[in-house]
Amino acid sequence: MTYQELFQQIILKKSYLCVGLDTDIRKIPSHLRNAADPIFEFNKQIIDATADFCVSFKPNIAFYEALGPKGWESLQKTVEYIPKNHFSIADAKRGDIGNTSGLYARTFFDPESSGLDFHSVTVAPYMGSDSVKPFLEFEGKWVILLALTSNPGSFDFQRLGFNGSSLYEEVLKTSQTWAGPDRMMYVVGATQASEFRKIRTIIPDHFLLVPGVGAQGGNLEEVSRFGMNSSCGLLVNASRSIIYAGNGLDFAEKAKKEALALQKEMEIYLDKYCN
Amino acid sequence: MTYQELFQQIILKKSYLCVGLDTDIRKIPSHLRNAADPIFEFNKQIIDATADFCVSFKPNIAFYEALGPKGWESLQKTVEYIPKNHFSIADAKRGDIGNTSGLYARTFFDPESSGLDFHSVTVAPYMGSDSVKPFLEFEGKWVILLALTSNPGSFDFQRLGFNGSSLYEEVLKTSQTWAGPDRMMYVVGATQASEFRKIRTIIPDHFLLVPGVGAQGGNLEEVSRFGMNSSCGLLVNASRSIIYAGNGLDFAEKAKKEALALQKEMEIYLDKYCN
Repeated sequence: MTYQELFQQIILKKSYLCVGLDTDIRKIPSHLRNAADPIFEFNKQIIDATADFCVSFKPNIAFYEALGPKGWESLQKTVEYIPKNHFSIADAKRGDIGNTSGLYARTFFDPESSGLDFHSVTVAPYMGSDSVKPFLEFEGKWVILLALTSNPGSFDFQRLGFNGSSLYEEVLKTSQTWAGPDRMMYVVGATQASEFRKIRTIIPDHFLLVPGVGAQGGNLEEVSRFGMNSSCGLLVNASRSIIYAGNGLDFAEKAKKEALALQKEMEIYLDKYCN
Repeated sequence: MTYQELFQQIILKKSYLCVGLDTDIRKIPSHLRNAADPIFEFNKQIIDATADFCVSFKPNIAFYEALGPKGWESLQKTVEYIPKNHFSIADAKRGDIGNTSGLYARTFFDPESSGLDFHSVTVAPYMGSDSVKPFLEFEGKWVILLALTSNPGSFDFQRLGFNGSSLYEEVLKTSQTWAGPDRMMYVVGATQASEFRKIRTIIPDHFLLVPGVGAQGGNLEEVSRFGMNSSCGLLVNASRSIIYAGNGLDFAEKAKKEALALQKEMEIYLDKYCN
């Protein structure tokens, strides 16, 4: 999926919502637990219920691999089931030396090797350029690089200062030489909304994947006001607040209601700030 | 496995060698390709051939997950097959916000969930304390934190200076408050041998996992001279130089010869520098 195609989907749906599939076998409704593949059955119903109100789905890989081989099978089925017009994100936070990152890229981008065919993968920047570039060798696929995260530990290193600039700003600056806004996005934590202005002076055009709206308590209005650019430039993720909105037979209906509410709010901000 | 138990194995074997199982289906000898599980068959023979000369085995997770669910099955069998006195390392470079890192910890440390029961896992520090601590909640398990790596990209961020100290030094200093040398090790790249002295002033007692001896061209003598402490404090990894030493019917015999040669060299350095 290209930058323009993603923007077109945003305009069409009036939404920049990403639904995070952090599907925990311990948290799904009990009536699904006897299904042949409870994780996939849950995801299928969540995708069906929310697809009209979002432009992206983001399986959190940890939740699948924690279940061993059968978790990877549920993941394969889920990725295949995500509608082709939705931007798919493997939230995997991978990154290693060149030949190993090449294998991680095959994991998420080469269906003949792994059975998975995502549009994009999240990558950690700590090991530098040659740990990121192998992912970019897959034509048309995207890297979503960790920049500033929303967890307390983001203060340990990401915000340390180097000559007046912080580590995450260095990550934004240096990584721009690796790929343009047509192949790279950044993870930027929603609880840092006041910093979006600074970030947008460094990367005016890139899409930002913003976690933390919903269960982690980010403010969607603030994120949209400071983070949006003329191509929207935002994918705002909500996971638990949508997928665990209900826990009974009507869990998908409740998830739909949550996704619709976020889409309605996003429609207002697109009108107001996307210009 | 405890710090003391690991040191005892090192003394017993006169070796601090870690054999890296970077097992690539495209590189294993052709006569194994028709086995029921070629990856496991290769690993089994490598483990049998080298176990007497090493104290640790380190499957590189990328190589297994790139093959999808069947790769994870090969990994399960491999981890089960590693002898119990060998320190097992999941080289996975994981790291995410707390609840997600908790799931990654289950992947590598909770056999009832994933089928895997490693002694340790490599973790990336970028997201800070709460991305690392969930791994430490598994009693007796180890975190091996990325500090300074041996790839060209290590110059992009790890060596950036903060008030006279570099990012990787900050990682060493800050992470010491998360766990002691009995639960944490560090990845330190072997091509930076002259920096071992500086590193040893910050973390005199921790074990260091040193990749890059062998195929990546590190110097074992230098690493041992500058990196060793009174409990050895080193695990030196070799992957490709051992496991791909041969490519015919005698590949395991050739791997054994390489491992033995490294063990013999290590025996000399243990005598000379471990005090």
